[in-house]
Amino acid sequence: MWDALKRHDIPSCLRICAGTDGSVTLLLELLTGKTIHVKTLEQDVEKATPEIARFLEIKEGDEVNNRLVTLSADGIVYVLARSLSAIKRMPEDVRSDLMRADIPIGKILRDHKLETRRDILKMEFVTSDFFGDVPVISREYKIIYKGKVLMWINECFPVDERWEI
Amino acid sequence: MWDALKRHDIPSCLRICAGTDGSVTLLLELLTGKTIHVKTLEQDVEKATPEIARFLEIKEGDEVNNRLVTLSADGIVYVLARSLSAIKRMPEDVRSDLMRADIPIGKILRDHKLETRRDILKMEFVTSDFFGDVPVISREYKIIYKGKVLMWINECFPVDERWEI
Repeated sequence: MWDALKRHDIPSCLRICAGTDGSVTLLLELLTGKTIHVKTLEQDVEKATPEIARFLEIKEGDEVNNRLVTLSADGIVYVLARSLSAIKRMPEDVRSDLMRADIPIGKILRDHKLETRRDILKMEFVTSDFFGDVPVISREYKIIYKGKVLMWINECFPVDERWEI
Repeated sequence: MWDALKRHDIPSCLRICAGTDGSVTLLLELLTGKTIHVKTLEQDVEKATPEIARFLEIKEGDEVNNRLVTLSADGIVYVLARSLSAIKRMPEDVRSDLMRADIPIGKILRDHKLETRRDILKMEFVTSDFFGDVPVISREYKIIYKGKVLMWINECFPVDERWEI
């Protein structure tokens, strides 16, 4: 799985953001020295489809928060991130923060002092409509809280010279 | 606190390793593309002094695992790390891994699927006998598990050209 990050044409800043088991937003902040802007493209509460129920290990029809955001600094988009969250497993105050547009997930977990772990599921090269001709590293992981899946996250990182930071 | 990382003479690879809320060993592996070697300089079980008891929020005299290691790749030392662990709060199998010389703490937590959070306490410039004339960024953090302090960790990062990776 990690072989995707060993290619010599992957800039090292991209390698670490796509490989970390910590907060990507925090690393981007440290790398760029700038505030990372979270822009919400989609945000809604849905009933879990069979596929989403499988990702989150919940029942079909359970409520799921679906969020699609970009992370950018100075107008440069570094990450496109989709999160699916199992609403019933989420403490009330975490839930309301998640539905506000501008807070990165790592910060939400930190602010509410949640103890979690991140299980990386997949890492691969893909193409995406959003980034057009630019190749993309896509990774999927689960955030586990109290032994159950709290969130399923897919992050897409464009592979080009924007990572020469 | 984070101002220590904003100085312009701090190489970006160092900035991210000293600032991450994830595993430093994993980032070093991604940055260098090499296996990170953990070398144990000290390893023993001690009774908590008043100071250590305060760090770990345990009773004076409680058993503490004290470990001092270096993290290096190809003979270059990137980090000197001291960990103090509250033995009574540690699952049995985690304990035995921690007492083996060669396993980084991030990997131990991951392998045993522990849900934790890292609370950064301090970040500052210091000098250290180990690194001699090279200035050092020192940070302290706690690893919290089940609402209590599992480990107190101090990592020292030498500030020089070895981070031009």
